[in-house]
Amino acid sequence: MEPRITIVTLGVNNIHQSYDFYSKIVGFPSDKGIEGDIVFFNLQHMLLALFSKDKLAEDARVSNDGTGFSGITLAHNVKTREEVDAIIDKLRKAGVTITKEPQDTEWGGYDAYFQDPDGYLWEIAWNPYSWIE
Amino acid sequence: MEPRITIVTLGVNNIHQSYDFYSKIVGFPSDKGIEGDIVFFNLQHMLLALFSKDKLAEDARVSNDGTGFSGITLAHNVKTREEVDAIIDKLRKAGVTITKEPQDTEWGGYDAYFQDPDGYLWEIAWNPYSWIE
Repeated sequence: MEPRITIVTLGVNNIHQSYDFYSKIVGFPSDKGIEGDIVFFNLQHMLLALFSKDKLAEDARVSNDGTGFSGITLAHNVKTREEVDAIIDKLRKAGVTITKEPQDTEWGGYDAYFQDPDGYLWEIAWNPYSWIE
Repeated sequence: MEPRITIVTLGVNNIHQSYDFYSKIVGFPSDKGIEGDIVFFNLQHMLLALFSKDKLAEDARVSNDGTGFSGITLAHNVKTREEVDAIIDKLRKAGVTITKEPQDTEWGGYDAYFQDPDGYLWEIAWNPYSWIE
């Protein structure tokens, strides 16, 4: 893995309330606003995303309870599907827990999730529609 | 606030275990390794920090329980002490909960913390020793 966080995602309980907070109070820019149940803010070299906490936990294959899921994931995007597989294979061989095996996503990409020692979740993702470092 | 996350901090239970994970398994670079009870990884345009979860909660003035604290904070660094005050004043007037009032820090800087609607913690910090966008 290259040293990079591509997206910080906050699992939120009310996306409209949180969108208002980050757009109107904090003042972060969003090109498209809420798109369905997600919103992205452009933080120059990275993105901040807001997404349903329930769905974020579901996407990472963990339960949405207070102790098991912090509500935040860190995304690390790569340039090919093969890189997703290679990174996950290497982590698995090192004994790391893979919560979501590499697989095609509903949005046309390919991703997987692993957990760090405290249960923090990292998504390794290939997104054919955009490349953001 | 400019659109920027400067540091993602993970509150960890065992910094040695987590440092080994991020340095040896994930492969993130750290200039100085563990310094006392904290370590910084250089992620190009931002930093990833590991810090005692107990101390991170204490620093942000929240309790370290499963439901009240996710274990992650997002840092937004500014160029002057006055900017810390100005941002916090504006947020307070907007009804935002300030968990830590602007104050001098033990490390020679000046910081404050606020909570977003889900309790996620943002540190607004002025650090006289470094300026990282």
